[in-house]
Amino acid sequence: MKIISLNTRNRREMVEITSQVNKLIEDEKIRTGFCLVFVPHTTCGVTINENADPSVRADILAILARLAPEKGNYQHGEGNSDAHVASSLVGHSILAPVINGRLALGTWQGIFLCEFDGPRSRQVWVKIIAETGDVS
Amino acid sequence: MKIISLNTRNRREMVEITSQVNKLIEDEKIRTGFCLVFVPHTTCGVTINENADPSVRADILAILARLAPEKGNYQHGEGNSDAHVASSLVGHSILAPVINGRLALGTWQGIFLCEFDGPRSRQVWVKIIAETGDVS
Amino acid sequence: MKIISLNTRNRREMVEITSQVNKLIEDEKIRTGFCLVFVPHTTCGVTINENADPSVRADILAILARLAPEKGNYQHGEGNSDAHVASSLVGHSILAPVINGRLALGTWQGIFLCEFDGPRSRQVWVKIIAETGDVS
Repeated sequence: MKIISLNTRNRREMVEITSQVNKLIEDEKIRTGFCLVFVPHTTCGVTINENADPSVRADILAILARLAPEKGNYQHGEGNSDAHVASSLVGHSILAPVINGRLALGTWQGIFLCEFDGPRSRQVWVKIIAETGDVS
Repeated sequence: MKIISLNTRNRREMVEITSQVNKLIEDEKIRTGFCLVFVPHTTCGVTINENADPSVRADILAILARLAPEKGNYQHGEGNSDAHVASSLVGHSILAPVINGRLALGTWQGIFLCEFDGPRSRQVWVKIIAETGDVS
Repeated sequence: MKIISLNTRNRREMVEITSQVNKLIEDEKIRTGFCLVFVPHTTCGVTINENADPSVRADILAILARLAPEKGNYQHGEGNSDAHVASSLVGHSILAPVINGRLALGTWQGIFLCEFDGPRSRQVWVKIIAETGDVS
């Protein structure tokens, strides 16, 4: 399993990691298969969304902060319940196809680590699966 | 990789694609494995939910429209920030088991393309994985 | 495919199943691969989140109940539209890496069946994939 390490800079932030994931796939020299991008943190998520206009990310983070506000009537005492909720709403993994040695994504799609309780040092785990058994 | 092409008819809509995915699996003549259903668009999602009563879909879309309203105080200038948010809330892929040459789903489950910024021409990418390495 | 059967005890509840999934992996005696945890119900979800402090679960369920309230202006006549919505927000599957014969999760991560329309008898389907084709 490969690890991408990064430092987030804000409490809530979407950090694009598409090119780092593609680099790991290139290093493995596989042509066809799958790529699992997994976040081992309970106050982060990973999602796919538009990577052209950064304001899309701002809008996503703003809505998530409204759905699960930082200050609320929470039971958990660490002040980051909003981050745990956002984490389960967004999800902890992406499984994307690999074709011609790269992630097969739509034109506007990028993969983002979603930080909901930063800034912190974070990891993203990447597992690349060559497609010996594939029939497609 | 297989492609399902379809035209959505409304701005927000859930289009069932279960039988089309099963047809692709049958064409491959595999018995056991997995099926990845991946949406390459940043204003769509793909989800599993009840396919018996269409009013379930209406309720899901209505709640999503309330969580991320079409008209809001958004930064992104294209007027579809709500669709980008819904896309990350619902997610872009489904990984489902394949058993006896068909999707193994629960009794009431169907797979739906979720259109959040239609009507448009859309694609769903389907990748079928035969299970040579499976031990289950 | 392996099946975990359980009975939920409340209408909304998060039931940790991490150790049961690990037991299934141990039974298969595989070392490296993937584990798909799939919920075949349309009013349940499966998620990863913190398994240390149970109040995190309470906060997640409370926010979900606010995003999709039990009583609402719903079309679906069975009184569980909120559960169908929560199910699509949280998602129906987890794909996690398997390393050294166990789930590779972050320090604080556990896997939870999310019951949104209990109490009921529920199943979780687990599919374990040995990693013959893996190059990581």
